[in-house]
Amino acid sequence: MRKEKYLELKKYIEELKVISIKEKNNDPTFITSISYSITLNNGRTIEREKIMKGNKNGSAVIIMPITLENEILTVIEPRVFTEKKVAVSFPSGYIENGENPYMAALRELKEETGYVPKYLKLLDQFYQDEGCSEALNNSFIAFDSVCKYPQQLDSEEIIKIMTFNLEELEELERNGYINSANSKLTLEKGKKYIKRIMK
Amino acid sequence: MRKEKYLELKKYIEELKVISIKEKNNDPTFITSISYSITLNNGRTIEREKIMKGNKNGSAVIIMPITLENEILTVIEPRVFTEKKVAVSFPSGYIENGENPYMAALRELKEETGYVPKYLKLLDQFYQDEGCSEALNNSFIAFDSVCKYPQQLDSEEIIKIMTFNLEELEELERNGYINSANSKLTLEKGKKYIKRIMK
Repeated sequence: MRKEKYLELKKYIEELKVISIKEKNNDPTFITSISYSITLNNGRTIEREKIMKGNKNGSAVIIMPITLENEILTVIEPRVFTEKKVAVSFPSGYIENGENPYMAALRELKEETGYVPKYLKLLDQFYQDEGCSEALNNSFIAFDSVCKYPQQLDSEEIIKIMTFNLEELEELERNGYINSANSKLTLEKGKKYIKRIMK
Repeated sequence: MRKEKYLELKKYIEELKVISIKEKNNDPTFITSISYSITLNNGRTIEREKIMKGNKNGSAVIIMPITLENEILTVIEPRVFTEKKVAVSFPSGYIENGENPYMAALRELKEETGYVPKYLKLLDQFYQDEGCSEALNNSFIAFDSVCKYPQQLDSEEIIKIMTFNLEELEELERNGYINSANSKLTLEKGKKYIKRIMK
């Protein structure tokens, strides 16, 4: 990894590390669940519970933006329930009511990074947690992304932005900083396009 | 896809399709959540909620078993919250208390399929839902798998077993029957080993 990238990442990891984590007394309001009884065509009845996020199914978009300099834009965020507590991933977020995945991808990319792409291509769709959620996530690659706006973050969002090349992303995956199903699958499915561009 | 495989799969899809799904009145007991307040090194305090499954963090194992005939063993299950309602995936399940991922993989493979492998290799680890869960899933490839036992299913499990070759799995992924992050990532990370064996 380029030395300046290593130092910048190290600074963010230090800044975002968790000092304390306390269980709160109030009931969770974002993550809830619903029980169902399901009858199948073979006559069997089974029970399943479904995760809800903010009263929605939790479908999300993940966007791998490629800049004009042929670098890949990533976000560094606190991931407080993971071992490293801070992760490198791609811009992502939940699809809002009335949005299709393309609209959500453009909005999340703009909000989290200020970048706007020239082309947006759907790489893949996959269920996040197939046994107990309706969440269908959408991975995109965003070509010719240019920074046109400042970040616009929600009060609970803390997001640092960095660009890397493909070899650096592969190193971050090996070292466990890129560690989620969402990021890994987006990286796998996007690699062939990155390699084509980098040639 | 080989015609006999197509017909067998079609039969299972018909058998497992959902006839009715009803919301139950009782509170969910398996999927719950906890709220936390987290202080970071930069002084910011953020709130996050964490998904719990049966009072555990929900870490799971996914096993891609290769048979002595060089076919890949899959499971066909009702996935009632997905669009197709039935999915093709790999044997998988939650890690139980006191187990490491290897023990859980051997147990789940035996329970769901009756197969026992000669070698078990960890392909990858990834967080299932990085922002709101501790669940760290483990993908394995299980070489030289042989059927030695009958299936031993829980009362809520309905699992049909089928073998496919790599081209058929890729067709099932394109057609949306292999559609979860868990299966797709396991397939991606296992492909190079399958290709090596198939040569």
